[in-house]
Amino acid sequence: MTHQTSRTSVLTGHRTLGWETRDVGQPGPHEVRVRVRRIGVCGSDVHYYTHGRIGKFVVEGPLVLGHEVSGVVDAVGEHVQRVKPGDRVALEPGVPCRRCTYCKTGAYNLCPDMTFMATPPVDGALSEYVLWPDDFVFPVPDTVSDDAAALLEPLAVGVWAARKGDVRPGHSVAVLGAGPIGCTTVMAAKAAGATTIIAVDLEDFRLDLARQVGATHTFNARSGDALAFIRELCARRDGLPLSHGGVDVAFETAGSLPTTRLTMAAPKPGGVAVLVGLPPDPEVSLDIVGAASREVTLRGVFRYANCYPAAVELVAGGSVTLDALVTHRYAFDHTPEAFEFADREKKTSMKVMIDVS
Amino acid sequence: MTHQTSRTSVLTGHRTLGWETRDVGQPGPHEVRVRVRRIGVCGSDVHYYTHGRIGKFVVEGPLVLGHEVSGVVDAVGEHVQRVKPGDRVALEPGVPCRRCTYCKTGAYNLCPDMTFMATPPVDGALSEYVLWPDDFVFPVPDTVSDDAAALLEPLAVGVWAARKGDVRPGHSVAVLGAGPIGCTTVMAAKAAGATTIIAVDLEDFRLDLARQVGATHTFNARSGDALAFIRELCARRDGLPLSHGGVDVAFETAGSLPTTRLTMAAPKPGGVAVLVGLPPDPEVSLDIVGAASREVTLRGVFRYANCYPAAVELVAGGSVTLDALVTHRYAFDHTPEAFEFADREKKTSMKVMIDVS
Amino acid sequence: MTHQTSRTSVLTGHRTLGWETRDVGQPGPHEVRVRVRRIGVCGSDVHYYTHGRIGKFVVEGPLVLGHEVSGVVDAVGEHVQRVKPGDRVALEPGVPCRRCTYCKTGAYNLCPDMTFMATPPVDGALSEYVLWPDDFVFPVPDTVSDDAAALLEPLAVGVWAARKGDVRPGHSVAVLGAGPIGCTTVMAAKAAGATTIIAVDLEDFRLDLARQVGATHTFNARSGDALAFIRELCARRDGLPLSHGGVDVAFETAGSLPTTRLTMAAPKPGGVAVLVGLPPDPEVSLDIVGAASREVTLRGVFRYANCYPAAVELVAGGSVTLDALVTHRYAFDHTPEAFEFADREKKTSMKVMIDVS
Amino acid sequence: MTHQTSRTSVLTGHRTLGWETRDVGQPGPHEVRVRVRRIGVCGSDVHYYTHGRIGKFVVEGPLVLGHEVSGVVDAVGEHVQRVKPGDRVALEPGVPCRRCTYCKTGAYNLCPDMTFMATPPVDGALSEYVLWPDDFVFPVPDTVSDDAAALLEPLAVGVWAARKGDVRPGHSVAVLGAGPIGCTTVMAAKAAGATTIIAVDLEDFRLDLARQVGATHTFNARSGDALAFIRELCARRDGLPLSHGGVDVAFETAGSLPTTRLTMAAPKPGGVAVLVGLPPDPEVSLDIVGAASREVTLRGVFRYANCYPAAVELVAGGSVTLDALVTHRYAFDHTPEAFEFADREKKTSMKVMIDVS
Repeated sequence: MTHQTSRTSVLTGHRTLGWETRDVGQPGPHEVRVRVRRIGVCGSDVHYYTHGRIGKFVVEGPLVLGHEVSGVVDAVGEHVQRVKPGDRVALEPGVPCRRCTYCKTGAYNLCPDMTFMATPPVDGALSEYVLWPDDFVFPVPDTVSDDAAALLEPLAVGVWAARKGDVRPGHSVAVLGAGPIGCTTVMAAKAAGATTIIAVDLEDFRLDLARQVGATHTFNARSGDALAFIRELCARRDGLPLSHGGVDVAFETAGSLPTTRLTMAAPKPGGVAVLVGLPPDPEVSLDIVGAASREVTLRGVFRYANCYPAAVELVAGGSVTLDALVTHRYAFDHTPEAFEFADREKKTSMKVMIDVS
Repeated sequence: MTHQTSRTSVLTGHRTLGWETRDVGQPGPHEVRVRVRRIGVCGSDVHYYTHGRIGKFVVEGPLVLGHEVSGVVDAVGEHVQRVKPGDRVALEPGVPCRRCTYCKTGAYNLCPDMTFMATPPVDGALSEYVLWPDDFVFPVPDTVSDDAAALLEPLAVGVWAARKGDVRPGHSVAVLGAGPIGCTTVMAAKAAGATTIIAVDLEDFRLDLARQVGATHTFNARSGDALAFIRELCARRDGLPLSHGGVDVAFETAGSLPTTRLTMAAPKPGGVAVLVGLPPDPEVSLDIVGAASREVTLRGVFRYANCYPAAVELVAGGSVTLDALVTHRYAFDHTPEAFEFADREKKTSMKVMIDVS
Repeated sequence: MTHQTSRTSVLTGHRTLGWETRDVGQPGPHEVRVRVRRIGVCGSDVHYYTHGRIGKFVVEGPLVLGHEVSGVVDAVGEHVQRVKPGDRVALEPGVPCRRCTYCKTGAYNLCPDMTFMATPPVDGALSEYVLWPDDFVFPVPDTVSDDAAALLEPLAVGVWAARKGDVRPGHSVAVLGAGPIGCTTVMAAKAAGATTIIAVDLEDFRLDLARQVGATHTFNARSGDALAFIRELCARRDGLPLSHGGVDVAFETAGSLPTTRLTMAAPKPGGVAVLVGLPPDPEVSLDIVGAASREVTLRGVFRYANCYPAAVELVAGGSVTLDALVTHRYAFDHTPEAFEFADREKKTSMKVMIDVS
Repeated sequence: MTHQTSRTSVLTGHRTLGWETRDVGQPGPHEVRVRVRRIGVCGSDVHYYTHGRIGKFVVEGPLVLGHEVSGVVDAVGEHVQRVKPGDRVALEPGVPCRRCTYCKTGAYNLCPDMTFMATPPVDGALSEYVLWPDDFVFPVPDTVSDDAAALLEPLAVGVWAARKGDVRPGHSVAVLGAGPIGCTTVMAAKAAGATTIIAVDLEDFRLDLARQVGATHTFNARSGDALAFIRELCARRDGLPLSHGGVDVAFETAGSLPTTRLTMAAPKPGGVAVLVGLPPDPEVSLDIVGAASREVTLRGVFRYANCYPAAVELVAGGSVTLDALVTHRYAFDHTPEAFEFADREKKTSMKVMIDVS
């Protein structure tokens, strides 16, 4: 068990990805060294690449991007029992402090001292090798492809969103936005038993994919009034007056103001609106009165906690299929082109995958 | 068991309360006839009196106001077992359809066919006698005064708010607004085990009363930055960094935009903001991004369901004292003066009580 | 809309089913008259037939059996809006008082004044026509067969059991007993997202059916130690030491002492054991210490509440397939033979269906 | 910051407590060294002293007893920010692995690798100094005495029990057994809003103390039928038929078979029975049928998780008073006498406290 040199893609400036060779040491007692195979390109990666910041997180030095990661275990520390060299694994990219109230109560995604890959100043995984704590390394069976293992990360977001929405068998849900997170939210809602799943987007290409992964209804918001569509469909389905028509749970995944407003209006009285995405401006005009007077609960989603085990199970058992999300693929050497493409072709691509193997 | 004539105060026009003598019949098999003793004047009563409408509910004919009601059982229907003539009782003022999904799942406050006293076109209880279904009539022991029995209604709102907020022993809460609902929310939060209860208002008179009924801290928002006060106090209390300082649960009870904004900002990450009141305009500019990215849950409150039994228990056992809220008192004959006073002296009065006995 | 004569099968003595022609009147304002099509024979029906009692419920006069019911609406009362004549429907067989605390809080299955079909002295539905309150009549779409509509009743038990167990996506569950209730519990657990579903029974015939409807693993308890099998499988699956091996949720559906003991032992620490069936003797020797010290929660199931809407949704959308459970079929005229058969061939039959159409 | 010699009481054989002087080193980066002030004698300490084992935990070498601990911070590691030398503190006596699924989901009390004071082979705190991880060290304000700080440990058990029982404002509870854990359960139930609290014991001395700390009713089980008393009281209180009479939550804290049986029988349909204590034999004959068919939930309690913050809050704010539980007091030098007394005078003593200061 020796050190490894690791070719690494590094964001060194605006739209500038360079290469470095870094040294990845031996794993500590509870650490695992992973030979990376796949990195999914996430919208946040592209945003750091093009804008250099997301909210309060600012890129101030060289930064390695990439936090949707799969690979093969290369070496393990002396106390590691969960995995052994040669195991195929996915990496949960955020490691909390383990000591604060949030960590001790199971809400580690809210830990004030989180280390999260590819969030400045913490490096991500666009490299040949990475070291990671063993309890955030998840072995995957052969039924899970390398692509799918990397995409457990956006699936974890969907699983967390479905948990926050408390989706239950027989529920109706609406998913506003049918990008990668919209699609994994559809998958997670279906896995939790939702029987009516309405996906709304502006691009038919995405809606087709949403239907393929579980949506029972799709609605292109260019074609009419999505809210009226949802309310009428649900009122009829539930045998309720139109005033009480609405989904059990609505999910915002597009990060726009119109979808945020729609997400708050779509639930039936007593339903839940889950904000997975966020509108681009901090201050937005919303009909909070309408939502609150119908006792609609609004819940935010910040990453996820304890979702990887369920995500692995769902993919391993075939309940959800992540591979369909990969629309484009680049070799590691072409990482810069992958980022340019992902930025340029947002509307025509779903998930761009980088093959590091 | 015969009919009763019942002198009744009727809203017949803008700021116009007249008198009628109505006939109150014999109770049906599951009904109770109650000789009214006390009616608390609620802000919504005054609003119908002065504005003739609240949102979609419009006064279009003569309307009897009053929905905070206590009295004595006068006669009961043949199947009534819960109470007998002579029992002192409080009336839960809303009766749902009992048949829809909301009723069957315990969320009857959201029933599309609710009959709620003093909400047009349903008459309230400013009358000598009322008929009411027995299962919405609650006997009270001698430890509960007639005033307190009437005020079980606003206490039920507080109990529901505390439930929605999931207040637990050891929690910190902030109550924005210290009017009657703010005070009953303080009481309910305290009864649920909150150990830090911060009341915020613009009037010291109300803050003093809030402290008397359970607030551990009060803050007059004219005197400084309430949010900073809350965050610093809670961060210190919980041993968390200031970024994570905040209450477990914040309650909006003032119905203003500034308090709504404060309610959304006051909870710690993972906390809950409960909107008991609502801002006056449907569309308001809010920092939903800040709330959602800290995974603060926003919950609305629309009346209450299944709160009277707990409210009776809390008052009967002495956990909360409602009588302190009554600051002014009018005889039934002076009902019009009571309404004028309640409208004029909002800032100097807490609860105006009408004595119908 | 006139009265209907209704040929009716009546239990008149020990193992004695006779025939009567009864009059079924016009539906009241909120009632529906249904032309019955299918009645599933439940174990409780057979038990009344053979033993004349179940616990405190004793057959003391003529009793109509049958509470798994589908049919077609024949006539409706004046206030009925949910269904119209000609609609195909399933009947939820228990109607509560609508007024007690249990009814008002959504736990109507525990109502002290429940009217439940085929539970003495309340008649069941083995008749051509029945009258029933409209809010316990559920329309089904064409994708749901008459057989499946009748079997929504045992599916509702499974849905309730899965709710009580709080089955979530990615969970492991064990279902002890693979009869009709065991199979619907498998279905409901799968619909709620369980990815490891272990069915245990003594008959391979039943285990094959359980696998067909969703079990991922089956274990014939004659072949070895079911508890060891479950613990090893789950410990490996979850990466936990054998001491913490166990399912997230175990369900007892066989009504025997050994399966009750197994159900309490099978969950991992912090898991849930749901008793859908009950051991035949009231006093049984159990390892409560082992369950409690691992913080396993034990929950009983008594019928169900608010499960029909979800059950309809699951079947209508194809998430579960009930038709596979029907192994034998009798015409209405041969109802007595159906009961004799169901009693005699418990081990070789799953669900016996009576065709009343 | 140097090492400290620490006079230590060590269990070296059956009923044999000797003395050693041990070396307590400097705190590690996240550790705190505490000068111990008070140690409460727990039933489990006495059991190890008299029997040398509790279940699977066997004393096989010298063992330091004591896990109800308060003291003053003597020295802190370099990363410690929660406390500083001179702070008065309580110690939560169990430290989990922080890495397993249980730890990550907030259920660390079920961690397979728990280090718990005075549970073989882990030493307890009957010593002048102890080292402990800073996140399990809780500062207490001056309103909390040294005695009370030590007794936060049994209060944490009560708080956990009340959480498991989901006690809510207005609830009725029964606490079977009124020893130290029974009394802290009474306190915790009261703090959570229970308004009817029935304590049952065989000793009036204990019942008097239970009433002093919050019980609203007491019942000496020698005097009659406790179950009948509970059912009648609650049926009347709740306006339910006797068949549905019972408490919302019952707690077993005595560790006997009769109280276990009573705990399962005392809840109303849909209620909860919490087993804080356990019957002495693993296999016991129980009426599981009666409990399950009323949908009573049975929950076990194994220590607690995340209860110290709430326990500190409750004591600091005066919601509960722990000092009343201390009935006898011994200086550290008389530790052996304290154990002999605690063993001999179980029926006449509540809590024996050892003063180590």
